[in-house]
Amino acid sequence: MKNIEHIRHSLAHLLAVAALEYDPKIKLAIGPVIDNGFYYDIQFSAPFSNEILPTLQKRMTELTRENLSFERVEVSTDQARVEFKNQPFKLELIDELEKTGKRITLYKTGDFVDLCRGGHVENTQEIPADTFELTHIAGAYWRGSEKNAMLTRIYGIAFDTKEALGAYKAQQEEAKKRDHRVLAEKLDLFMVSDVVGKGLPFWLPNGAFIRRKLEDFMFEKELKSGYKYVNTPILTHKRLYEQSGHLAHYRDDMYSPIEIEGEEYYLRPMNCPHHHQIFLYRPLSYRDLPLRLAEFGLVHRFERSGVLTGLIRARCFTQNDAHIYCEKGDLKAEMIGVLKLFKEVFDGVFDIKDYWFRLSLPDFSNEEKFGDIEDKTMWDEASAIARNALEEFGVTYMEGGGEASFYGPKIDVQIVNAAGKEDTIATIQIDFYSPKRFNLDFTNTKGEKEQPVIIHRAIMGSFDRFFAFLTEHYAGAFPVWLTRVQVQVIPITEKQNGYARKVEESLREAGIRLEVDDSSEMLGKKVRRAKDTKVPYFLIIGEQEMVSQTVTVESRIFLLVLKMRLEYERIKWVKKLKICLMTNACTIK
Amino acid sequence: MKNIEHIRHSLAHLLAVAALEYDPKIKLAIGPVIDNGFYYDIQFSAPFSNEILPTLQKRMTELTRENLSFERVEVSTDQARVEFKNQPFKLELIDELEKTGKRITLYKTGDFVDLCRGGHVENTQEIPADTFELTHIAGAYWRGSEKNAMLTRIYGIAFDTKEALGAYKAQQEEAKKRDHRVLAEKLDLFMVSDVVGKGLPFWLPNGAFIRRKLEDFMFEKELKSGYKYVNTPILTHKRLYEQSGHLAHYRDDMYSPIEIEGEEYYLRPMNCPHHHQIFLYRPLSYRDLPLRLAEFGLVHRFERSGVLTGLIRARCFTQNDAHIYCEKGDLKAEMIGVLKLFKEVFDGVFDIKDYWFRLSLPDFSNEEKFGDIEDKTMWDEASAIARNALEEFGVTYMEGGGEASFYGPKIDVQIVNAAGKEDTIATIQIDFYSPKRFNLDFTNTKGEKEQPVIIHRAIMGSFDRFFAFLTEHYAGAFPVWLTRVQVQVIPITEKQNGYARKVEESLREAGIRLEVDDSSEMLGKKVRRAKDTKVPYFLIIGEQEMVSQTVTVESRIFLLVLKMRLEYERIKWVKKLKICLMTNACTIK
Repeated sequence: MKNIEHIRHSLAHLLAVAALEYDPKIKLAIGPVIDNGFYYDIQFSAPFSNEILPTLQKRMTELTRENLSFERVEVSTDQARVEFKNQPFKLELIDELEKTGKRITLYKTGDFVDLCRGGHVENTQEIPADTFELTHIAGAYWRGSEKNAMLTRIYGIAFDTKEALGAYKAQQEEAKKRDHRVLAEKLDLFMVSDVVGKGLPFWLPNGAFIRRKLEDFMFEKELKSGYKYVNTPILTHKRLYEQSGHLAHYRDDMYSPIEIEGEEYYLRPMNCPHHHQIFLYRPLSYRDLPLRLAEFGLVHRFERSGVLTGLIRARCFTQNDAHIYCEKGDLKAEMIGVLKLFKEVFDGVFDIKDYWFRLSLPDFSNEEKFGDIEDKTMWDEASAIARNALEEFGVTYMEGGGEASFYGPKIDVQIVNAAGKEDTIATIQIDFYSPKRFNLDFTNTKGEKEQPVIIHRAIMGSFDRFFAFLTEHYAGAFPVWLTRVQVQVIPITEKQNGYARKVEESLREAGIRLEVDDSSEMLGKKVRRAKDTKVPYFLIIGEQEMVSQTVTVESRIFLLVLKMRLEYERIKWVKKLKICLMTNACTIK
Repeated sequence: MKNIEHIRHSLAHLLAVAALEYDPKIKLAIGPVIDNGFYYDIQFSAPFSNEILPTLQKRMTELTRENLSFERVEVSTDQARVEFKNQPFKLELIDELEKTGKRITLYKTGDFVDLCRGGHVENTQEIPADTFELTHIAGAYWRGSEKNAMLTRIYGIAFDTKEALGAYKAQQEEAKKRDHRVLAEKLDLFMVSDVVGKGLPFWLPNGAFIRRKLEDFMFEKELKSGYKYVNTPILTHKRLYEQSGHLAHYRDDMYSPIEIEGEEYYLRPMNCPHHHQIFLYRPLSYRDLPLRLAEFGLVHRFERSGVLTGLIRARCFTQNDAHIYCEKGDLKAEMIGVLKLFKEVFDGVFDIKDYWFRLSLPDFSNEEKFGDIEDKTMWDEASAIARNALEEFGVTYMEGGGEASFYGPKIDVQIVNAAGKEDTIATIQIDFYSPKRFNLDFTNTKGEKEQPVIIHRAIMGSFDRFFAFLTEHYAGAFPVWLTRVQVQVIPITEKQNGYARKVEESLREAGIRLEVDDSSEMLGKKVRRAKDTKVPYFLIIGEQEMVSQTVTVESRIFLLVLKMRLEYERIKWVKKLKICLMTNACTIK
C-alpha cells in the first residue's frame, strides 16, 4: 500500500472519531479507501445533512495536529465482541471473520478503536492538514442490499499535496460542467420521465437529431466497408436463449419474460443470436464470406435503479453492432479492417485521439471465468491472430490478462472519460464458440462443410454512450454537421422579422438548418440565449442589414468550433452559406 | 341477399353433400358465404388433403345437374336434435339457438338436411356448372378458439359467369405473384425465424436497405415540413397506461407486463402517451406551437398467431408517426399541411394515385363505441374542421359514419391492395381527449393556460405495411433510389473479373451501389440471376468491353423502371452513371 493510501485510510478513522464526537449514538459500518479518497458508512441517530461536513472536517484537521498514533492490537473474537458491544454492524463483521478463521485486528487512535485490517500512518502528524476535504454524502445500504438498513456515506478526498488536491478539484469542476446529464438538461438533449420510469431515456429533438446523423454517418461508412444492414426483432422466444446459453449464464442481466399464447418471450439483451438466424437462413458458401451483418440494434439489459446514469448506464440502448462471419484465414485481415474503420471514425472525424488499445487475453488460472475452456490451443491461436492484427496495423497496445470475454480474446479501445475514469469505448471480439453452438457452417472451396469464425464489433459502442461521450468531449458544442440548428437568425427588433423570415427561407432552400428567434425580447437576451444553446453560427439582422440586404454572421465563441472547421459535411454547408452570401442569395430583392 | 350469394350458399350445401358421400363419418360445422365464394368447416374421420378437392368438385357439378330443390322446414329444437343426433357441432348450435329463442329452420336438398337460416336458390339447376371451383383447404378451430377441435375448412369460389370466374382467377394469380411474402422469399427482403418466433420479422439486407431509405426520405421531408424528431423508449411503467386509459380499454392488444424491481412495465402499443411526456417536459407558450413531434416509433401489439401475415400483420412494427400539438385555430391549416405532405409523398414520389379519402365520423347511435361522448358539440366542430380541410385542399372524399376513432373524427386514406381488398394506408386523426387526460396545456397570447388540440398522423402508416404495399405495387422492381444494389456488374468470363473490379471501384467512387457477379457460371445464368433479383441495371463486360475500356449497360425489362425514371434521387445517380460513362471514368487506363 502506498503512503497516500495509508493517509486516506487513517483519515477514514479520524472521520469516525469526529462523527462519534458529533453524535455519540452513531453506529459505524465500514470505512475503506477508494480512488482519490475514502468514505465511512454511518448510521446516525438523527437526520444528517451536508451542512455538518465542515464541522467534521474542522475537527479532523485538529485531530491531525494532535499527535495521535495508530496502534495495532490483535484480539480474540470474544474480546472484539466486548469492545464493539454497542456497534451492531461491527458485531456482524466479527461473526463473519470468525467463520473464515481470520485473525481479528483492531486499530487504536486515542480513545477510538476500530475493527480494521490496517494500512495506516504511524501518527496523525504524517497527515498534511490541508490536503483533504469532505466532499459530499450519499445514501448507501448496509452491504449494498436494499433489504438492509440505509446508512449515510460520507465521502472525502485526500492527496499528497495541496496542489494535487487543487488540481483534482479543478478537474472535477470541469467534469461537472461537461457531465452529459448537466449539458443535456441545458441543451435539451434528452430527458427521463418520472411516469415512464427510470433508465428509459427520451431523446429530445436536439439529441435525437444528432443521433440520427451519427447513425447516417455509420450507415454510409459501413456500407462502403462492405457491411450489410439488417433489422431484427427485439423480442425472441426463449428457445433462442436456451440454445445460446443466455438463459443459463446471462439471466440476471435480462428482464422477466413476456407470455404470448402460453410461450415465454424475452427482450433481447444482445443482437448476436438474432444475426446467427440470418446466417442460417440460406445455405452459404465461401463466396458469401466474409458476411458482415450490421444493425443499429436496440437491446434491453437489467440495471438496478441505483446505478442508472443518464445515457451511460440505462436500461435500453442501441448498439452500433456488427458481426463478421469469415473463414479463419481471413480473420486477421478482417480485424485489421475493423481497426482501420475505427481509426477513420475516431481520429479522422471526431478528433478523438487519446485512446489506447488493450489486447484482452484469457487468464487460465481464473477457474471461475475460464475454467470451462477445453481447447486452449484455439485460444492461443486466436490471441496470436489478434496480436498480429494489432502489430500489422502498427499501433502500440497493452495486454490485459483475464480481460477476455467468455467466448474468446478481444481488443478493447480504452479511453479516459471527462470524470477522469477509464472506460471501454469500442470493442472487437473473436468468437469460436457461437458457430458450434448454433451449427453455423458454409461450404468451403473443397465442397466441405466448415465452421466460420465470428467477430463481434461495435465501433461507436452504443449510440447512447457514444453520444454521452461526445457531449462531454465537445462540452456540448457539437460540430456543425451534427447540430439540429446550425444557424440561429436573430432580428434585432420586430421590424426585421419579415426580412429574417426571407433570409430563413433562402438559407433553408440552400440546405442549411436554421431557426429564427422572432421573440420580442432585447437583442442581448437573444444573443445570450443563442450562445447558451451553443448554436454554431448566428446571423444578426438589424436595420442596416435589412437596407443593404445582407446578414452579419457571428459564431459561438468556443475553441472547439475552430478545431471542427474541417470536419465531415461541414465544408459542404459552409460552402453553401458562403456561396449563398457571395452570390447574393441572401440579398433578397 | 343477391342471387350470387344464394348460389354461393347453396354450393356450400352441395359441398357438404359431396363430402358426406366421400366420408359418411364426417362431422359438419358451419358453411357460410364469404367474399367471392363460400366454405364449409368439416371434421373428417381420416386425414384430408387438397388432392381430394377435384373429386368433390366433380360430384358438386353433377349435383347441380340433378334438379334438386332447396326446401325450407321449420322445426322444434327437439326435432332438430333428433335430426342431427350424430352431428355434435350442429347440436351445440341448436343449444345456442334455443337459448336465444330464435326459430330453428332446416334446409333439405335431396336426402341432405342442414341447419340453416336460408338464402338459397330454389333448385340446383339455377347454379351454372362451370362458374365455381373448390380452391384450397385450411385448418380452422371450431368457433375460432384454439381450445376447440381443429377442423378442415374447404374453400370455394363462385361467380355469375364463367368470365367473372376467369377474371377473378387471373387477378388472384397476379396478386399471388405480387404477394409481398412470395416476393420477399424470392428477393431476400425479409424472413421469419422459427426459433425467434412468429410475427417477428427479420429485415434482410435488401429489405432493410429500402426501409432505411424510406426512413431517410421521410426524415428529410418531415424536417423541411417543420417536424422535430424524437426517440422514445419502447417500455413504460404501467402508470402511463393507467393515465392514458390503455390498461382499461386496450389491454387485449397489449403484451403481458415485465417486472422490474417489483413494478410492472409494458411494451408500448403506440407512441402517443410517450410524446405527451415530452410536451410536458417544459412549460410551453403559444410561440412553441404548433409543436410537431415525429418518431419512427417501434410498437408491439398482440396478434393471434393465426392472423399473422408477413409484414402486413406482425407483432411488432415501426410507425412513421407524428403528433401535432396546436391551437384550435390552427387545426385546419395543420390538417391541410398533413394532406399536402401526404400527396407529395404518395403521388409525387411513389406514383400511387388510386387512393381516396374517407372522412370518418362518429355514429352517435352506436352506443358501444360512442356512447361515452358527452361533448357532441366538440365532435361536430372537429368534424366540420376536417370536412373544411378536405374541401379547402380540394379533393373529393366519402363520409364514413361510425368509422371515427374513439377520441375524435379522422381522415383515412383508403386504397385497394394487390389482393383486391380495401385497406387504410394513412390516417389523420383529431384528438380533443388526450390533452385533458394528460393535463397538457400552453400559455396563450392572453397569458392564460389553454389546452392544445392534437393531430395523430402517419403518412406511411407503418414502414412495415408500407414496404409490403410497395413491394406489391412495384411487383418487387423497386425504383433505383431505393435498391441496395443498383447495378450488377457481370463479367462474361473469369478473364474479365479484374477489369470488372476496376469498373466496380470506379462506379462505387461515383456513389453508385453495385455488386460484381464473379462466379464461374455461364453468362446466361448470371443474367437470369440478375433479372430474377430485379436489379435495375446490369453491366455486361466481355473481351470487347475490356479492350475498348467500356461497359455495356442493360436494364431490367419492366415497365415501372421507365415510370420511375424521374423519381427522387434517381436522376442524381443516373446522371452520375452517365457522366461517369461519358467522361470515361469507366475507361480505366
